[in-house]
Amino acid sequence: MIGRLNHVAIAVPDLASATAQYRDVLGAQVSDPVDEPDHGVTVVFVQLDNTKVELLQPLGDESPIAKYLEKNPSGGIHHVCYEVDDIDVAARRLQDQGARVLGDGSPKIGAHKKPVLFLHPKDFNGTLVELEQA
Amino acid sequence: MIGRLNHVAIAVPDLASATAQYRDVLGAQVSDPVDEPDHGVTVVFVQLDNTKVELLQPLGDESPIAKYLEKNPSGGIHHVCYEVDDIDVAARRLQDQGARVLGDGSPKIGAHKKPVLFLHPKDFNGTLVELEQA
Repeated sequence: MIGRLNHVAIAVPDLASATAQYRDVLGAQVSDPVDEPDHGVTVVFVQLDNTKVELLQPLGDESPIAKYLEKNPSGGIHHVCYEVDDIDVAARRLQDQGARVLGDGSPKIGAHKKPVLFLHPKDFNGTLVELEQA
Repeated sequence: MIGRLNHVAIAVPDLASATAQYRDVLGAQVSDPVDEPDHGVTVVFVQLDNTKVELLQPLGDESPIAKYLEKNPSGGIHHVCYEVDDIDVAARRLQDQGARVLGDGSPKIGAHKKPVLFLHPKDFNGTLVELEQA
């Protein structure tokens, strides 16, 4: 079912400093910051040869990563995102297997304007897993 | 400098159960478990279309991930590994930029029999970053 790793998301307390590290210390290609107010984050995309890293900084008062940064003030790896061909097929398969999908269980439109869902980290080795329809 | 994402490593308390999840719930291709006594882990490789996930369970009394699992009993994303062409060039560049390399600062032979180094997570957004010579 899962195909490519779409991205690894890293929550960071200081996006400008994290971006400079990836660009200057690790020598990676980085994007300009992009505000995504609907998702409560400002994102910088680090383009690797086979996938990307997304550096996330909270945006607004209701940011879903603000609490994560309270617990992890230096930042940390927030989630991984795997691609699937059909998010509805994926959602049904997950429910049939007893996996808990966050929210009301149905896919939503994600930050890349594609349908996504998130699996409960307690069910998945303490790992927040996003599935995105490719 | 960094090229491909070689792998994302996820520390898990129960490797058999985590492997079954990735195989049966997420429908991924998984390897048999491989003991790596020199590195204190048993590993299952989850092969994705563009990279891989490594599920890590502690092996032996001195496992480097035992303490991580004490703090995170459900498991969690332990590190990311980026590929570089030349680990010695990478190490010099990192030192020139003031980045702290774990251990004595020189590359070691890693779990894939290739030279690796680890960067200090406090310097890198709370993220343990491994660099591996491709």
